[in-house]
This record gives sequence, structure tokens and C-alpha cells, in this order.
Amino acid sequence: MSSFFSQKYASLTPYTPGEQPQERKYLKLNTNESPFPPSPLAQRFARQAAGDLQLYSDPECRALVKTATEVFGVGQDEILFTNGSDEILNFAFMAFCDKDHPAVFPDITYGFYKVFAELNGVPYTEISLQDDFSINVADYCGVNKTVFIANPNAPTGIALTLAEVEKIVASNPENVVVIDEAYVDFGAESAVSLIHKYNNLLVTQTCSKSRSLAGARLGFGIACKELIADLNTVKYSTNPYNVNRMTAAAGIGAFADVDYFAENCKTIADVREKSAEELKKIGFTMTDSSANFLFAKHEKIGGKALYEQLKEKGVLIRHFETDRLRDYNRITVGSAEQMAELIATIKTVLEENV
Amino acid sequence: MSSFFSQKYASLTPYTPGEQPQERKYLKLNTNESPFPPSPLAQRFARQAAGDLQLYSDPECRALVKTATEVFGVGQDEILFTNGSDEILNFAFMAFCDKDHPAVFPDITYGFYKVFAELNGVPYTEISLQDDFSINVADYCGVNKTVFIANPNAPTGIALTLAEVEKIVASNPENVVVIDEAYVDFGAESAVSLIHKYNNLLVTQTCSKSRSLAGARLGFGIACKELIADLNTVKYSTNPYNVNRMTAAAGIGAFADVDYFAENCKTIADVREKSAEELKKIGFTMTDSSANFLFAKHEKIGGKALYEQLKEKGVLIRHFETDRLRDYNRITVGSAEQMAELIATIKTVLEENV
Repeated sequence: MSSFFSQKYASLTPYTPGEQPQERKYLKLNTNESPFPPSPLAQRFARQAAGDLQLYSDPECRALVKTATEVFGVGQDEILFTNGSDEILNFAFMAFCDKDHPAVFPDITYGFYKVFAELNGVPYTEISLQDDFSINVADYCGVNKTVFIANPNAPTGIALTLAEVEKIVASNPENVVVIDEAYVDFGAESAVSLIHKYNNLLVTQTCSKSRSLAGARLGFGIACKELIADLNTVKYSTNPYNVNRMTAAAGIGAFADVDYFAENCKTIADVREKSAEELKKIGFTMTDSSANFLFAKHEKIGGKALYEQLKEKGVLIRHFETDRLRDYNRITVGSAEQMAELIATIKTVLEENV
Repeated sequence: MSSFFSQKYASLTPYTPGEQPQERKYLKLNTNESPFPPSPLAQRFARQAAGDLQLYSDPECRALVKTATEVFGVGQDEILFTNGSDEILNFAFMAFCDKDHPAVFPDITYGFYKVFAELNGVPYTEISLQDDFSINVADYCGVNKTVFIANPNAPTGIALTLAEVEKIVASNPENVVVIDEAYVDFGAESAVSLIHKYNNLLVTQTCSKSRSLAGARLGFGIACKELIADLNTVKYSTNPYNVNRMTAAAGIGAFADVDYFAENCKTIADVREKSAEELKKIGFTMTDSSANFLFAKHEKIGGKALYEQLKEKGVLIRHFETDRLRDYNRITVGSAEQMAELIATIKTVLEENV
């Protein structure tokens, strides 16, 4: 820290993204990327956009918004695109949280919520997940704080039902409830349909996972037009041209190619279920994941040891060295072939250890 | 504003970007875009990157950083890339300004500084430009605040010399001095070489103008490694994957194609000088611009009237309806052909009015 750095950030602990090693080719199952390339239409549109880069992007992303509204059945003033969903989440912390509106989220969830709260000087409460890693819905009803819930949750993969989400939203009419649906397309129920019923609901999603655009950075929020207008005030005070031309074009292709999206989501859900079965057979216990990852621990090898030994053998998974998580690892669901390679490598590790 | 919007932003006035009309084809000389497409190398690299978008971008942008350091003669820990230069500027307001470190900048300059100060709750002072729209260097010496100066300044185009910039930096050893060089490549002197002499200097630049990448969104900051480390703390607490794969790839091509860059900068500077001569002949007065725009007023027609009548005829320029600026317009320097069309259209307007 230099002597010039503002004291308000002196104790800030930045988010640590998953490893993105450049030096060696790994079987990469650590950052919940899709094993499938973006839709051919997304690729084509992105390539076409590369010729016009001397011109600014449309700050309103009108063409992208139009395509997305058809997918989600919402109005053009009910959606806002951002540079990845981290940006819309940060905008939500900026717009809807402050000393009078503290934040609340589970103690085990997306690690960035805590960082955003600290970055924005927002007081926050972390509510413990239950022993089985599930969210106790009653903990968030009438809680009188701005609620952030990842659904499905990470790194557990456990989803709330739509009725449970609605209960939380309905019981907090004075506070915004943010449902972070980064992983919703792999098997959970989206709350988007509720935005026309509740003016305090913000649903965030990303094109990084189910739409294979992690490297393009495209996230978005869906809410009633009043909340979207507030988020736009923040956007236009932060980075009006936050979505570049190529990413907006790729997004149009990804939303338009409905079949490719549906097929990939189904494949990943199927591979997840089959992989879970295989892992159980060799001694793993898992949460019931509705996401594109498994959260698994083994009866005989610690989480860190497994992570390290897999990495040595060229397989990357994600390890969190914190109290309740250290026995587990989060394993991205890749293609059937990738999961076969993962399981074969795990078997070798187990043979060497047990 | 919804009832949920944080009171801290209740009086926030967002930045108003230049018009990006989609409905009609204009001769667009309003947002200082380059008339030239990106380097063919930049386009090629961006297109190649469109195939791998399922994978996250490298949060450290290592390949891009390596290419840029060769251009600027700085170390890999002395540069940080962002989603346009608005993001690095906001990071600077976040990292280096607070109640104890207020900001100072000219009253006439890039309009976003004021928005960033308000967004971040930073007290700020605006110092009046002199009657000829130039900066009085003495006003910023030993000022005991975090200094933001656009060099060349916008919308005036007037540049400080390197010696003047150094005087400001040297006289404020306890405060960061940010030199925003968005337009430096069209005729001003860059302060990048001073970062090895002063630990309080942050130089920001953008690939939007001289490198024809406005639509890709790529900005950057260059400073001693301690300041860059502080800015990275902010980045990793805000948006670690802030630069997408296609933009990083385009940037590599743009930095590598040194000749294309140099030729375009020279052409624009030449066209600027010739256009200024033409405009003088038909009654315009201008500041001495070192940027890719002219700041011009006419002896017989008001700034707003000229702007509106040009727009009706399909030519967009930028008008600012504020006290000292309303007689003027900011006119982007396009290609020789575009400027000929502009001047012909202005002549028609003048004939209709005078």
C-alpha cells in the first residue's frame, strides 16, 4: 500500500479469482466455465463487430436489450447489461445499500458480496447456512436489510424453490432483494417472472456460464423499471460505455441461438448427474447441486490434498481453505470426456494415497 | 428515483455521453472517434479471440501488458488496463481521494471528473481556466489536493508542456497528480517518462482515440509500481475480469502495429491544421488544439444554433450549453473528406443564417 492510498480502503481484502494459469495446459474445472464454445452465431456477430471498433458502443445497448427482452418476456426498461455480473452486483451494493440499509447474505456464498460491502462501506451480516449447507428461508423473511442470495448458491449448488424466493421477496417490501442467478439455467427456477409482481426484486444473471461467454464479460440485471433506472444512474456515473461492441454483438447471437443454449444446459445437467453417481461410487459425498459444478468431499482424503495432487497431474479444481469448506472442493462440470478424465485422475490419486 | 435508492446518491447527476444515434446515418464528429478503422492486426487478433469466449480472460492481461510495456518503456508492474479510461479514472478517485484528500481540477475539462468526485463522496475544487481557456500552472503548484488535469485539456484542446506538467507533479509530493492523456498522441508531450522520477504521478491514456478502439473499451494507467498496486487493490475489489478477451487481443494488435498508429496520428494532426485554416477563413475563432478536435466559435452564429442546424443536415458535432462554452462547439477531426463535407455544410448553414 502506498502512502497515497485512501485510508478508507486500508483494510480492504480484494476478491481472489480462480487460477487462470497461462504457463501450462490444464484440464480446467476450477472456474465454472462452459466446456462448449459460444454459439456459432455469437462468434459470427462478435467477429463482424471487430471491424467497427473505432466507433463507441451504444451506451444503451439497444439491439442487445431488444433481443434479450424477447427471451425473458420483460420490457426494454426492465433490463440493464453490465461488464460481467460482478458489475451489476456492485451497482446493486452502491444503489441499494448504505449505513441505513445494511446488507445480509449467507456466510457461505459467492465471496464477492463481502468485498462489495466492504468496498462500499456497507455494514453487513452473514447468516450461517444450516448444517446441510442449505439456506434457512425463515432467516431472510422480514429481515429489514438488503438481501443478496445466490440461487443456486455457490459453492454448494443448492437451490431454493421459486416459492421460497417469493416468500423472501414478499416479506421484505421495504428492502431490495437481489437474487443472483449466475447458475440458474442448469436446473433451478428463475425468479424473473416475479419482477412484474414485486418492485423490490432484482434478478441478476450472467452470460459467462450457460451462454459460454465468460471471456466476453456480459452480465445483466432484470427488475421493475424504477430499480433499473436507479442502477442506470449509477452506471452513467461510473462507466456509460461499460459494454463494448464485440461483447454486445456476441450477446445478441447467444440470446438468439435458443436451441444451442438449451442443448448445452441439458447436456451439462445430464453430465453432472452421471458424474455425481461416479463420484459417489468412489467414496465422495456431495450436496444436491442444481448448478454446473459439484461440491464434493471424500471420506479418506482432505480437500486441499486432493486439490494439490490433482493440480500436479494437470487437473484444476477449486479449493477454499476456510472452516466449513476445507474438506470439500468445487468441481466444474465439464464435458463427458473431461469428467471421465477427471474421475480417472482422481482414482489414480486415491490409489496413491489410500 | 425509487424509494429504495440510497440517499447518498440522491443528488448525483450522471455524466451525459455524446449522442450515439442509431436511427439515422450522420457524419459523426461529436465524440472524438477516429475516422480510421482499427489496425488490421487489432481486428485479426480480436476475431481470433471470439472463438475462445467460454474461457475467462486473464485478469492480469499478461500478454497485453507485455506488448504495451515495450511501447512505453515501463515495467510490467507499472501499468494497469481497464474497461475504457473512465474506469482507471474512477479507480484513481476511489484510491487517491477522500475527505482528507480532496480533488482539484479545472472548471472546464472532462465532465466526468466532477461526476466521479460526487459518486465517491470526494470534496472537490474547480479552478477557473484563464480567459484564453488555458490552465494557469501556478494554480496547481503546491495545491495540497489530488490533481486531475487532462493534457491536452478537453474540450479546449490546449496542452501544457512537459516542463509545466513536471512543475505541478514536483510541487505536490504529498499528493497524487493524475495526468489524463486521452488526446496526447495528436500533438502534446506525454508525461509517461516521468513515472520513474516521481512516485506521485499517474498517467492515464485510452485506446479509444489514437488507436481506433473506442468500441472495444480499453484504457490504462501508468505509474510507479506502488500506485499501480493500490489501483489493483481497487480493481480486484470491483471487477477482476474487467478487460474481456477480445478487447485484450485487439489491444495487443493495436500496440504492435506501431506504423499504422503513427501514420494515423500524423494524418489527423495534418487534417486538424488544414481544417482550422479553412474554418478561420469563414469566420471561426479557435483555441490552439493539440487534440483530435477543434474548439471553435463563429462570429455570427451561436454555438447551439450551429449545432442544431448542422444536425438537421446530417452532421453531428458536440455542443455544451454552459456559460463559457455555449458560443463554441467541439468538432472532432475526421478524415480530409469528412472535414470537407463538414465545411461545405457549415457554409450552407451560414448562407441560410447570415
